[in-house]
Amino acid sequence: MSDTVGKPIQCKAAIAWEANKPLEVTTVVVDPPQAGEVRVKIVATALCHTDAYTLDGLDPEGLFPCILGHEAAGVVESVGEGVTSVQPGDHVIPCYQAYCGDCMFCKHPKSNLCTSVRAFTGKGVMKADEQPRFRTLDGKPLYHFMGTSTFSEYTVVHEVSVAKIPKHAPLDKVCLLGCGVATGWGAVYNTAQVQPGTSVAVFGLGAVGLAVIEAAKRAGASRIFAVDINPDKFAAAKEWGATDCVNPKDYDKPIQQVLVEMSPSGWGIDYTFECIGSVEVMRAALECAHRGWGESVVIGVAAAGKEIATRPFQLVTGRVWKGTAFGGYKSRLQVPDLVELYQKGETLLDKYITHTMKFDEINTAFDLLHSGQCLRCVLTFDQ
Amino acid sequence: MSDTVGKPIQCKAAIAWEANKPLEVTTVVVDPPQAGEVRVKIVATALCHTDAYTLDGLDPEGLFPCILGHEAAGVVESVGEGVTSVQPGDHVIPCYQAYCGDCMFCKHPKSNLCTSVRAFTGKGVMKADEQPRFRTLDGKPLYHFMGTSTFSEYTVVHEVSVAKIPKHAPLDKVCLLGCGVATGWGAVYNTAQVQPGTSVAVFGLGAVGLAVIEAAKRAGASRIFAVDINPDKFAAAKEWGATDCVNPKDYDKPIQQVLVEMSPSGWGIDYTFECIGSVEVMRAALECAHRGWGESVVIGVAAAGKEIATRPFQLVTGRVWKGTAFGGYKSRLQVPDLVELYQKGETLLDKYITHTMKFDEINTAFDLLHSGQCLRCVLTFDQ
Ligand SMILES: NC(=O)c1ccc[n+]([C@@H]2O[C@H](COP(=O)([O-])OP(=O)(O)OC[C@H]3O[C@@H](n4cnc5c(N)ncnc54)[C@H](O)[C@@H]3O)[C@@H](O)[C@H]2O)c1
Ligand SMILES: NC(=O)c1ccc[n+]([C@@H]2O[C@H](COP(=O)([O-])OP(=O)(O)OC[C@H]3O[C@@H](n4cnc5c(N)ncnc54)[C@H](O)[C@@H]3O)[C@@H](O)[C@H]2O)c1
Ligand SMILES: [Zn+2]
Ligand SMILES: [Zn+2]
Ligand SMILES: [Zn+2]
Ligand SMILES: [Zn+2]
Repeated sequence: MSDTVGKPIQCKAAIAWEANKPLEVTTVVVDPPQAGEVRVKIVATALCHTDAYTLDGLDPEGLFPCILGHEAAGVVESVGEGVTSVQPGDHVIPCYQAYCGDCMFCKHPKSNLCTSVRAFTGKGVMKADEQPRFRTLDGKPLYHFMGTSTFSEYTVVHEVSVAKIPKHAPLDKVCLLGCGVATGWGAVYNTAQVQPGTSVAVFGLGAVGLAVIEAAKRAGASRIFAVDINPDKFAAAKEWGATDCVNPKDYDKPIQQVLVEMSPSGWGIDYTFECIGSVEVMRAALECAHRGWGESVVIGVAAAGKEIATRPFQLVTGRVWKGTAFGGYKSRLQVPDLVELYQKGETLLDKYITHTMKFDEINTAFDLLHSGQCLRCVLTFDQ
Repeated sequence: MSDTVGKPIQCKAAIAWEANKPLEVTTVVVDPPQAGEVRVKIVATALCHTDAYTLDGLDPEGLFPCILGHEAAGVVESVGEGVTSVQPGDHVIPCYQAYCGDCMFCKHPKSNLCTSVRAFTGKGVMKADEQPRFRTLDGKPLYHFMGTSTFSEYTVVHEVSVAKIPKHAPLDKVCLLGCGVATGWGAVYNTAQVQPGTSVAVFGLGAVGLAVIEAAKRAGASRIFAVDINPDKFAAAKEWGATDCVNPKDYDKPIQQVLVEMSPSGWGIDYTFECIGSVEVMRAALECAHRGWGESVVIGVAAAGKEIATRPFQLVTGRVWKGTAFGGYKSRLQVPDLVELYQKGETLLDKYITHTMKFDEINTAFDLLHSGQCLRCVLTFDQ
C-alpha cells in the first residue's frame, strides 16, 4: 500500500483558470478520498471536444477555475470509507456518466442517465461534503469537471463513476473508451440498434463519427454514407467502413436532399447520426432519414441556447428523432465489456489515436484538436 | 346487380367551390369506376378536422373545386376491371391511407405509408387516367380529396383504398374508424406501444385525444393526464379514463413544467401525445416526456409552414420524438380488426358520436366542429 493513503497528494495538473485562456500546467493538491470516493492515479488522458467546448467558454454552466478532462484511464491509489467495488491497484476508467445501479434510471433498461451524483458533479464538487478535492498550493479550491477531472496526475471520483477493467489492458489505449469512441459505438448498438442490410449516414467524421461507422459496419449495415465538409476526413472514413463519402460543399442543394437522392431506396436513409454539434446538420440528418421508419440520432453537443427545428410533417411521415449520451452504455457495467472487445482485437480502437504527447504539452494538444487534423491525442504522465 | 353499373350516377354531394365558402349541397355526376377502382354508395360520413383545415384554406396544396370527406362507411355499388378484393354489396370503409400490400412501405413492418396511389390522390385524381370521376351537371370536373371524397352519396376510390368489413357492423358508427378514433388508438398501440403501469399525457381532448385516452387505459397505463384549455372537455376525459385533468390556463408556468412536477416520478411522463395541431404544444409534449426514455408522439396536423423546435439536449437526455399517420394501421388489413373489436363491445366508439344530422345539414355540422362542442358529427344520406 502506498504511503500517500489518507494524505493530500501534490502532483502535476492543468488548471483552467478561465475561459479562452491556455491551461496552466502546475502543481496542485489533491485531497484524500472521502466516503464513497476513489482517488485515481491517471496514466493516460485524451482530449475531447467537451473539454474544448468548456474551455472556449461555450458552456454557460462551466465553472472556473477547474480541472478539465474526462477521457482517461488509471490506477486506484486509495479508496474512501465504504468503498468496496474497487481497491488500491485496480485499473479503472473514470466515467462521467455514473452508474449506481440503484436509482430509477440505472434500474430502467432503456437509460444510463444515473442521477446518484449528478447534482454534485454539475456543481463541480463531491457529494460527501459538497466541496472539491482539488486546491492550489496556496489553498484556492479548484472545481471538478464532469465528475472526472482527468487533467491531473491524481483525481478523486465517486465510486459510482469508476469502471474496473482488466489489468492487462493498455491504459494509454483504452482511455478512449471513457467518452467519444464508446459514444459512437453505443449510438449504433444501443440507441439506434442498427440492423443488418440497412443504410446509415454519418455526419461529421471525427472520432465519434468514425466510431459510428465502425459499429455500423460491424452491425451489418450495407451502405454507409460518410458526410464531412473537410474532404481530408474521407480516407479514414473509407478505411473504417464507409461505402460513400459526401462533401456538402460539392452540391448546391441541401445535403438532406442529396442524401435522399443517393439513398438505396430513393426515400431516405434508415439510420442517421449527427456527430458534429450543429443544429442545422441535426435537422438535415433528421430530414434525410427514411420516410416511414428512419431514425436520426443526435450525438453532437450544440452551442448553448441553440435549438433544433423541423416541420412536424417529417415526424408524422414516420421519422424518429432521438439522442444519446455516452451511447446509452451503463458505464460501470458495460465499459469493462468494451475493454474486453478491444482485447479480443475486434475493434479499431488503436487507430483513433493520431497523436500522443507528454501531459505537459496539453495546450499544444488543444490547438491540434481545433485544427481538425487530430482524431484523438493521448497525453501521458511520466511514470 | 344494380342497373347503375357501368353508367354515370347522378347523386347528392357537397361541393367545396373554394376556401372559406360554405359547401354547396347539390347534384353531381359520378362516373363509373375504371380499372382498379371501386364505386361506393356512402351510407354515413363524419366530419374531421382535416376537412375543415382544407376548407379553411390552411392547406396550401388544397385543390378546388373538390368533394371533401374521409371518415365514412358504405356499400360497394360496382367495381372496375380487375378488382377482385371486393364486390358489389360488400360493406366497406374508405381509407385515405391506402394499403396495396406490394410497395416497400406496405411490406415494411413499421410503416403504413403506402405509396401505390399517393401521387394521384395528392393531385385529386384517379390513377387510371389521372382524371377525377366527379363532375357537375354541366360537366365541370371536381377534384377528389384524400383519395376518399365521402361528402357524396356515391364516390369512386382505388381498390387499395377500401377496407372490407362485416355486413352486420352499423355503418353509421364504424365510419369513425376511417380516421380520428382509429388514429388515436393506433398512436397508443402501434406508434408508442404504451406499456402497462406507465404514465401518459394527452394534449387536446377532441375525438383523437379521447381515443388516445381510451387506448392508453386499455393498454394498462396507470396515470393518464388529460390536458385541454377548454375545461368543458374534462368530464368526457374522466369518463374515458383520464386520472388527472389539467388546464394550462390555471398555471402561470409552462405546461411542460407543470406536468413534470405532477408526474409520478417527478422526471416526466412516459408517453405524451399531441392531438391538437399546435407546434407550441408539440414542444411542450416533448419536453414533459420522461428523462431517459419518454416518447412523444405528434398526431395533430400543424398549419402549413409551422415548425417544431426544442433544445437538442432534450433528445440527448433520452426523449424520443415521433409522429403517426392513421395511427400506424395498415388500413385494409387492420381496419376490419378494429370493426371486430367494436362488434365485441370492447370500445367506446358509440360515445364519440355527439351529433347526428342529415347530410343536407353539412354546413351546420362544420359550424359545430368549429364551436368545440362536438366530438364527431355523423351525417347520413336518405336511404
Ligand atoms: N452525446 C454524447 O454523449 C457525446 C459524447 C462525446 C462527444 N460528443 C459530441 O460529439 C461531437 C463530435 O465529437 P468529435 O470528437 O468526433 O468531433 P470532431 O470535431 O473531431 O469532428 C467533427 C467533424 O465534423 C465536421 N463538420 C463540421 N461542420 C460540419 C458540417 N456542417 N457538415 C459536415 N461536417 C461538418 C468537421 O470537419 C469534423 O471532421 C461533438 O459535438 C462532441 O461534443 C457527444
Ligand atoms: N396524424 C393523423 O393521422 C391524424 C388523423 C386524424 C386527425 N389528426 C389531427 O389531430 C388533431 C386533433 O383532431 P380532433 O378531431 O380530436 O380535434 P379537436 O379540435 O376536436 O380537438 C382539439 C382539442 O384541443 C384543444 N386545444 C386547442 N388548443 C389547445 C392548447 N393550446 N392546449 C391544450 N388544448 C388545446 C381544444 O380545446 C380541443 O378540445 C387535428 O390536428 C387533426 O387534424 C391527425
Ligand atoms: Zn444510478
Ligand atoms: Zn467527451
Ligand atoms: Zn403499398
Ligand atoms: Zn381525419
